[in-house]
Amino acid sequence: MFANRLKQLWAEDRPAANGWLSIASPFVAEIMAAQGYDTLTIDVQHGALDYSAMLVMLQAMRGSHVTPLVRVPWREPGIVMKALDAGAMGIICPMINNAVEAAEFASYMRYPPRGTRSYGPTRATVAYGGYGLAANDEVLAIAMIETRDGVENVEAIAATEGIDGIYIGPSDLTLGTTQGRLPPGFDRDEPEIVDLIKHVLAAAKAKGIRAGLHCGSPDYAAMAIKWGFDLTTVGGDTTLLAKAAATAVGRWRELTGAGCMAR
Amino acid sequence: MFANRLKQLWAEDRPAANGWLSIASPFVAEIMAAQGYDTLTIDVQHGALDYSAMLVMLQAMRGSHVTPLVRVPWREPGIVMKALDAGAMGIICPMINNAVEAAEFASYMRYPPRGTRSYGPTRATVAYGGYGLAANDEVLAIAMIETRDGVENVEAIAATEGIDGIYIGPSDLTLGTTQGRLPPGFDRDEPEIVDLIKHVLAAAKAKGIRAGLHCGSPDYAAMAIKWGFDLTTVGGDTTLLAKAAATAVGRWRELTGAGCMAR
Amino acid sequence: MFANRLKQLWAEDRPAANGWLSIASPFVAEIMAAQGYDTLTIDVQHGALDYSAMLVMLQAMRGSHVTPLVRVPWREPGIVMKALDAGAMGIICPMINNAVEAAEFASYMRYPPRGTRSYGPTRATVAYGGYGLAANDEVLAIAMIETRDGVENVEAIAATEGIDGIYIGPSDLTLGTTQGRLPPGFDRDEPEIVDLIKHVLAAAKAKGIRAGLHCGSPDYAAMAIKWGFDLTTVGGDTTLLAKAAATAVGRWRELTGAGCMAR
Amino acid sequence: MFANRLKQLWAEDRPAANGWLSIASPFVAEIMAAQGYDTLTIDVQHGALDYSAMLVMLQAMRGSHVTPLVRVPWREPGIVMKALDAGAMGIICPMINNAVEAAEFASYMRYPPRGTRSYGPTRATVAYGGYGLAANDEVLAIAMIETRDGVENVEAIAATEGIDGIYIGPSDLTLGTTQGRLPPGFDRDEPEIVDLIKHVLAAAKAKGIRAGLHCGSPDYAAMAIKWGFDLTTVGGDTTLLAKAAATAVGRWRELTGAGCMAR
Amino acid sequence: MFANRLKQLWAEDRPAANGWLSIASPFVAEIMAAQGYDTLTIDVQHGALDYSAMLVMLQAMRGSHVTPLVRVPWREPGIVMKALDAGAMGIICPMINNAVEAAEFASYMRYPPRGTRSYGPTRATVAYGGYGLAANDEVLAIAMIETRDGVENVEAIAATEGIDGIYIGPSDLTLGTTQGRLPPGFDRDEPEIVDLIKHVLAAAKAKGIRAGLHCGSPDYAAMAIKWGFDLTTVGGDTTLLAKAAATAVGRWRELTGAGCMAR
Amino acid sequence: MFANRLKQLWAEDRPAANGWLSIASPFVAEIMAAQGYDTLTIDVQHGALDYSAMLVMLQAMRGSHVTPLVRVPWREPGIVMKALDAGAMGIICPMINNAVEAAEFASYMRYPPRGTRSYGPTRATVAYGGYGLAANDEVLAIAMIETRDGVENVEAIAATEGIDGIYIGPSDLTLGTTQGRLPPGFDRDEPEIVDLIKHVLAAAKAKGIRAGLHCGSPDYAAMAIKWGFDLTTVGGDTTLLAKAAATAVGRWRELTGAGCMAR
Repeated sequence: MFANRLKQLWAEDRPAANGWLSIASPFVAEIMAAQGYDTLTIDVQHGALDYSAMLVMLQAMRGSHVTPLVRVPWREPGIVMKALDAGAMGIICPMINNAVEAAEFASYMRYPPRGTRSYGPTRATVAYGGYGLAANDEVLAIAMIETRDGVENVEAIAATEGIDGIYIGPSDLTLGTTQGRLPPGFDRDEPEIVDLIKHVLAAAKAKGIRAGLHCGSPDYAAMAIKWGFDLTTVGGDTTLLAKAAATAVGRWRELTGAGCMAR
Repeated sequence: MFANRLKQLWAEDRPAANGWLSIASPFVAEIMAAQGYDTLTIDVQHGALDYSAMLVMLQAMRGSHVTPLVRVPWREPGIVMKALDAGAMGIICPMINNAVEAAEFASYMRYPPRGTRSYGPTRATVAYGGYGLAANDEVLAIAMIETRDGVENVEAIAATEGIDGIYIGPSDLTLGTTQGRLPPGFDRDEPEIVDLIKHVLAAAKAKGIRAGLHCGSPDYAAMAIKWGFDLTTVGGDTTLLAKAAATAVGRWRELTGAGCMAR
Repeated sequence: MFANRLKQLWAEDRPAANGWLSIASPFVAEIMAAQGYDTLTIDVQHGALDYSAMLVMLQAMRGSHVTPLVRVPWREPGIVMKALDAGAMGIICPMINNAVEAAEFASYMRYPPRGTRSYGPTRATVAYGGYGLAANDEVLAIAMIETRDGVENVEAIAATEGIDGIYIGPSDLTLGTTQGRLPPGFDRDEPEIVDLIKHVLAAAKAKGIRAGLHCGSPDYAAMAIKWGFDLTTVGGDTTLLAKAAATAVGRWRELTGAGCMAR
Repeated sequence: MFANRLKQLWAEDRPAANGWLSIASPFVAEIMAAQGYDTLTIDVQHGALDYSAMLVMLQAMRGSHVTPLVRVPWREPGIVMKALDAGAMGIICPMINNAVEAAEFASYMRYPPRGTRSYGPTRATVAYGGYGLAANDEVLAIAMIETRDGVENVEAIAATEGIDGIYIGPSDLTLGTTQGRLPPGFDRDEPEIVDLIKHVLAAAKAKGIRAGLHCGSPDYAAMAIKWGFDLTTVGGDTTLLAKAAATAVGRWRELTGAGCMAR
Repeated sequence: MFANRLKQLWAEDRPAANGWLSIASPFVAEIMAAQGYDTLTIDVQHGALDYSAMLVMLQAMRGSHVTPLVRVPWREPGIVMKALDAGAMGIICPMINNAVEAAEFASYMRYPPRGTRSYGPTRATVAYGGYGLAANDEVLAIAMIETRDGVENVEAIAATEGIDGIYIGPSDLTLGTTQGRLPPGFDRDEPEIVDLIKHVLAAAKAKGIRAGLHCGSPDYAAMAIKWGFDLTTVGGDTTLLAKAAATAVGRWRELTGAGCMAR
Repeated sequence: MFANRLKQLWAEDRPAANGWLSIASPFVAEIMAAQGYDTLTIDVQHGALDYSAMLVMLQAMRGSHVTPLVRVPWREPGIVMKALDAGAMGIICPMINNAVEAAEFASYMRYPPRGTRSYGPTRATVAYGGYGLAANDEVLAIAMIETRDGVENVEAIAATEGIDGIYIGPSDLTLGTTQGRLPPGFDRDEPEIVDLIKHVLAAAKAKGIRAGLHCGSPDYAAMAIKWGFDLTTVGGDTTLLAKAAATAVGRWRELTGAGCMAR
């Protein structure tokens, strides 16, 4: 039986810890998949990678128990369908501004008559027993709410047939709704942004769909779960690596008193 | 002028913080190169990568101020020379057991009449102005002392013409000298291993060459600098990433109380 | 002289045996190109590959006598033109629903004034002597008819200036026209689907353009040639390999009586 | 401080020599970056490469003093934003026909409220200190004028908020405006095309934006600088290599009297 | 617990069906891993692939139940250890001529004091829980007997400490022992070669180690199991694909009467 | 029939123009293969590439009429045999110092009983009809004479069974024989080096084998043909490209008076 483990987790009312993959490396994917995440999202939008890297990363993650998601670069049928064919269990689609865009995105995710997905799950068939039309019930269409328009239309988006959840990117949400008044960044504590985040969350919940939030720290991510989010992102490969390395080197310099090479 | 910054650093009697690259990714190399290391070593021996990845990683690091070193998989002239031609400023060669092996390794590093390196620094010429024969004075030949034989012959190895430094891998050193009595691992605190490490260090110093130590934490790495090491490894990409991710997820699970997906 | 061998074949009223490439491998392309196919189609839509793999596959096929075609992921000018510049002799474009879409697709295929293709056939110029504007007369624009709308508008599509042929994907055609009543798959024998296929074929023939059919077996593919198709697909790399391997292992298990490893 | 060196050059009223990269190779990028160009443009439209090659080429060029530009395959937000995130300092966008298309393209280039670029400059942040929102003032949006419509609407395009310059591709410009009467090619000397080029240049200058021209020889490129162009392309990797090799072999055959292998 | 499934299979006195991978493609590896093989051997010797492809293929196979083996190009410590670090569960080493060579090969496979393997199983640690020193008891060292010398010394080779099995390549065995009198090829029926194969098999059995045979058909492979072989190779990717495709095209040509394109 | 065109050319007493490939790019290989060379040598020794790039380059060159040669990094059986299996028609082996090394190298090139090459020409079989044992008579073993020892033993090397030719690298030859008195470089005019080159040439001719010379210009390469060389290298990709680009930019700067960007 082909089944989406994230759907199962949510069916049991349990939240998901998501990790973020921005490095074009199947070995990074394997390493991250061994650290206890429930899901890992390959970011084909802002990550330094494209389809060719995504494919080998999905292959490398198959040996783990992690559920693979993909964020596509844009609301474009070609890449949405290719990511599904390659084995993504859910697609996070950026910049959904209204119900029309949400419906377009949703249509790319399912085979007729529920949508317009073209049939040919070449790798998914090899990787997952019983994929076929069963995919229609298992893959997840997750719309990003991150623009002024998206916020205004969030109820309509959340009510769109075939949309299974929303995902919030706080950087774009902040830039898009404050006209540049506030800088981009995660783990917002400005009340206006927190309220906005909770407003979008409430809209999703009201329509019976799932909600995810991009976070920069486990503490904020855990807090957001308590707000009601179903999935929160708990770190990404680039930031985790950079911070850990910089901290180690800084500690070494502090203890040895050795400065950097003159530049 | 073509110059090896690590040689310059050492000429000023300053120690070097080294990072370790085991992931086949030019982006990981770029990220690591931005965290304050003096040198980064691409591990073609135990890293999950080969020449083709090493090449693009050297290219990606050229824009930083980090000095690139390469650990080759074995004492084999083909890969030593290819790594130099690709732009490595120093070569760490594993498993040097005696002066004969040290001399072989050293010969691969310099053009005649000082050695047997074949001329054709195709990328190094493009990447570094004035490479040519000047490379003979700039590249560093670093021999790993990590076997019982290597320890016994460390004075002869350290005295070999053309050997610029030694490097200690504590895992192999421990396995090789204790007949499996002690497990592999870094940051050893068993007196017999610490004494062995200091013994190798002293032999290098007595012959006027440099010494490096592979460490697993900045604290141990800093302590080793105080023992007299000239370069210590302060973390590697795979371990830094894995630990940081596992810690973040663990914290999230602790705060949310959410267990992992059933497996 | 630059010439499309598939056009020549068709000019002699001979049908073409087409193979399907879904594996991102220039060696698979070379192997398939040595098995007697007239044409090979690189499937950038459902194949587990993208432009970067397509390029080296086209390069690897150049040494054979096979005519390379490319199925693009979507009706999008960027990839259509890139596939042509890379040396595709024909483009199969999925999901053409009406004459407007057909005209858009056709326009991407030719230079002005016949279309809107941008000039810069970088690899095609290297690979094929005399490419240049001659390409306008040689490349083939093949529209897939595989939706309810596409079937309804097949006459208008087939009559569109610049469309050289149609291609039928039975899986999508079945899903798209039966509202999910019938499952996807090739080599259909349901009368309603066979009739549909013949209806599309007749529409193409009536407008004087070529018709191709995706088949799963040489017998069906040969039968379709007798119906009047000009090109039929006789197997794809993934299915041919999977079936051949499974058959061999099954035979071995039958003969040895050895079961699979416990899982 | 994050700064675009091309902007600085232009601020000093100095013209730029641009090179063209069509080969998917970070080593070719490094070689070209060492030959004295001010800028190098990676051609993702007609070059035999895609995002995955562009990324490593940008990484390989970071160690040089060259400013990297990217020509995208089409006016499509996904690839424009991905090229910026990967570190392109400017984007050349093909086939801009009118002010609406110009405004769409410009919007993809800047973060809100100036545009619709999504925030997440993953590699740019690593490669360039202080990228962030500062990018809005540094990246350059360059619209190609190469169609009949584009020429007709050049004033409106040049006046579009956020468009920093125009770029002319003589091949497409000729094909697009002469209805195929004149063949494609660079370094045009037909008065009607020269006038057209100067007309587009004048329109750009009148609106206070920059203008670039694709040339096939340094002499024509230098002449165009005298006409007032701010950047001219002085050769591309494929043509430079092909011509130099063919000339060398031709000279050898002439001197030796040895013909080619019988074919 | 880290365990080699092939060892477990053999411990239960069950034979293994092995497949052969010569195509540099993780997707081919995934496809082959889904067809029922017990083990798959990545051929880094004669396959059209090297370490970089082997790595992603091992990653892609991890999600299956197949045990991955690697044939190295030569008896060279660098690649043997790199293949193990990458996750190979057994190494097939070509051209073992005598006990000295067998002992060298065996030493590369285990950590001290049992051998000289250097410690650093970077990917194996990530991919397999509990790898570490446990690998010493799990990985399999398999020596190829395929030369005149190898046959003469087979008893000594089979008796070498650390050698777990032998593997016979009939092509090299035939060429090496008949001085070119007989052509290369699998599935030999010449009595002298069959006797030779059975002689090598008997020598292995006498020393209590395992024996494998490279076969070209399931029937021969099954027969060899009855002779006493513990593992037989039942097809390889290139041959399976080529034969299946050629058969399909041939059938189509027979049914349609259509000849190949004129060449 | 499988035939080596270089052997055919030489059988007709015609000299060969050879090009040099140091860039890891199948497209560069295709471009170079279209410029009129008789042979192209992929330099796996000093080129910035390894087996994985060599393979796709051989595939890309198959569509041309150029005969592909490979220079291996070292006298090591694994890579010599892998290059042959991948389709190299001849192998240039660096640093042959005496007849023993020459015989070792020669043995890697032919199947038993003439040598020790292992049978399994996986890609060569696909790429070239009738490869098999016929390869023994077609592939060329070319030994580089470039050290003091090599020069002293040139007669014995040239007389070694299975050596088909010698190749001279003037840089290593000069460094190796003058103890660093003269700098590396091609196109030598010092009488002592010219005499040495002619001495090696004469030794080859005396033994009835072929001789090649690495040159930096067509004029020198043509002169060497007149001296009696059978093949001379007329430029390499990196140098041809770099010089052509630098010349173009220099001309542009001269004509425009525009200096480089301040650095």
